[in-house]
Amino acid sequence: MAGQEFATENFNPNDTKGKTITCKAAVAYGPGEPFVVERVLVHPPQKMEVRIKILFTSICHTDLGAWQGENEAARFYPRIFGHEASGIVESVGEGVNEMKEGDLVIPIFNGECGDCKYCKSEKTNKCERFGVSIMKKEMDCGGTRFSTMDRKPIFHFLNTSTFTEYTVLDSACVVKIHANGDWEFNPFIKTLTLLSCGVSTGVGAAWNTANVHSGSTVAVFGLGAVGLAVAEGARARGASKIIGVDLNPEKFIKGRAMGITDFINPRDDERPVYERIRDMTDGGVHYSFECAGNLNVLRDAFLSAHEGWGLTVVLGVHTSPKLLPIHPMDLFEGRRIVGSVFGGFKGKTQLPHFAKECMDGLVKLDGFITHELPLEEINQAFDLLIAGKSLRCLLCF
Amino acid sequence: MAGQEFATENFNPNDTKGKTITCKAAVAYGPGEPFVVERVLVHPPQKMEVRIKILFTSICHTDLGAWQGENEAARFYPRIFGHEASGIVESVGEGVNEMKEGDLVIPIFNGECGDCKYCKSEKTNKCERFGVSIMKKEMDCGGTRFSTMDRKPIFHFLNTSTFTEYTVLDSACVVKIHANGDWEFNPFIKTLTLLSCGVSTGVGAAWNTANVHSGSTVAVFGLGAVGLAVAEGARARGASKIIGVDLNPEKFIKGRAMGITDFINPRDDERPVYERIRDMTDGGVHYSFECAGNLNVLRDAFLSAHEGWGLTVVLGVHTSPKLLPIHPMDLFEGRRIVGSVFGGFKGKTQLPHFAKECMDGLVKLDGFITHELPLEEINQAFDLLIAGKSLRCLLCF
Repeated sequence: MAGQEFATENFNPNDTKGKTITCKAAVAYGPGEPFVVERVLVHPPQKMEVRIKILFTSICHTDLGAWQGENEAARFYPRIFGHEASGIVESVGEGVNEMKEGDLVIPIFNGECGDCKYCKSEKTNKCERFGVSIMKKEMDCGGTRFSTMDRKPIFHFLNTSTFTEYTVLDSACVVKIHANGDWEFNPFIKTLTLLSCGVSTGVGAAWNTANVHSGSTVAVFGLGAVGLAVAEGARARGASKIIGVDLNPEKFIKGRAMGITDFINPRDDERPVYERIRDMTDGGVHYSFECAGNLNVLRDAFLSAHEGWGLTVVLGVHTSPKLLPIHPMDLFEGRRIVGSVFGGFKGKTQLPHFAKECMDGLVKLDGFITHELPLEEINQAFDLLIAGKSLRCLLCF
Repeated sequence: MAGQEFATENFNPNDTKGKTITCKAAVAYGPGEPFVVERVLVHPPQKMEVRIKILFTSICHTDLGAWQGENEAARFYPRIFGHEASGIVESVGEGVNEMKEGDLVIPIFNGECGDCKYCKSEKTNKCERFGVSIMKKEMDCGGTRFSTMDRKPIFHFLNTSTFTEYTVLDSACVVKIHANGDWEFNPFIKTLTLLSCGVSTGVGAAWNTANVHSGSTVAVFGLGAVGLAVAEGARARGASKIIGVDLNPEKFIKGRAMGITDFINPRDDERPVYERIRDMTDGGVHYSFECAGNLNVLRDAFLSAHEGWGLTVVLGVHTSPKLLPIHPMDLFEGRRIVGSVFGGFKGKTQLPHFAKECMDGLVKLDGFITHELPLEEINQAFDLLIAGKSLRCLLCF
């Protein structure tokens, strides 16, 4: 049984509750410097916090960019990166009643406090307190729950920090997927890890942000895990044509299994990609998704959407200071452009149901995990991502 | 009775049908050159065309920009400008069955052919054949229906050309408001003229594009006729706070009658306008409307909308080649930006009902017509618009 692969024979919350745990973690000490896997101290959860034992964690481009220090103002070291993971609750702090030790959970970097004006609105999945910020380096009530063995603080990352055996999160950033006991027998536990970021971001962009309709046409620019999850979400919605665009032809083999019906390699033809897509779709797609973080690609994505009703959804992280390559008058053609964060999912409210849909086979997530490595080989896992060889590499403990 | 003010005692279609009409028109001979009011020839309507006698026409900023030659590629002279008008059908060409001589009609620059993929879609008011183009200078099937007295062609403008006693339009660009006979007794005839462009554009942007909801907050940037029509549309929808922004304090007096509850003159305070609006609205408005055609204003409008759900609607014509002053990452805050053309109205399908709503008092249009002048004084009417002294100046024949 799949659960036995990660049987945590040494896990006994009664031994650790209320105590500082010593465990291994991959610590970043400077921009782009190799991770150091070492023993760290993980302190008990405080009020409304949860300490979880990570079962699996994976690596996403947001970790890559942050680790490389692409935002100079966010160079906080030492720091524990990682935000896509699954785990089990080890112990909860004061006031946490919705979950208890042994529950299977996934961390969410885009939290849901439930009390702010955004959480109370149906129109957004923003959260005033636990939104996405790579500048936030401590717990919400202050301080860090990690320290080095010589008691120097280690900073947190994206409300999560998952490159560690144990982590502490605000309960607003923890989603309970199964109550105690079930998790050990869940064959989907590895793929559920991906719901913590990439798969929810991609499928949610197609379902919640764009609301892709049956029979529609779709173009996905950038076929990493997020882009492929968009394609899989569009396939599940019954899109009739899903065009994948990527410079790496190896992505096309993978993509075909995830619903992509047509491929475009921009290097194969001198014509602009948007013109080729318009030719293939009677003037343009209903929905285009930019998952590349590149402004030229964004322009292509925008122009490949049909005049009058085409919608472009931006998912890529754009680090260039350059502005949107769109003229105000372009908007009069009736194309729209919106951003999507975490696929528009309100994590705590909607992810348990989405997880059930995944387990029921509504979306197929088998192909996303391409590699598995022990945490100790995290630097190799990053190399695989940089080389475009992995979609998701699970790090195991 | 209002109808008698423009009783057209000399109008008898039996005398003119099928013949070339000689009448007066204001002809533009070069960019920014004073209009010449002179006799011109208006030829009979061809297949699927309609010749109408203009009752009233007014001037909008689009006429101003085109007349000034702001788009060099569209400097076609001689040309008859004007696109906001009301009139009565003088005669119809072959195949036009939906209207006949004597019907009260308004021209629409954004036509509705009823057959193209846009017209058949509920998602847009674009039309493939009769969309907005200042480059189109002839009738759809070719040629012009105007000529000088010495038989040189005079070019058409925006599918309409209304600075003339008689004009010829494609029937796709003519909306029948009342059947024969009614028009003479309609006290709303003058204000209905404004449905041909400005009022429909503004009210429609609030109703169709933004779908302003009761109790919502709204900011309108630029209080010309279009901006004030947005405000009036928002008022009719029950918006609780409508903030008007303009550099001209005289606009504020007018605005108050049209639902504007609060005013901001950017020159009154060094703080950015968007900050002031956020302070007044608990973080930002639900809907902001840019009616100024200025990129700095557009940025203010975008940032004055609330994170998570705020929508900015662009109505202004932007002649600068500069791009949208928005960074891709700004989209992740959940603000959206869209364009609106002709208020999202499908002219032929929806304007008759909208006209009835106006006549029933759902929106109040009394304040929009600030001046009336004979066609011969068209140059003075342009001066009033340039000086910001008029909202709408009706030109009468």
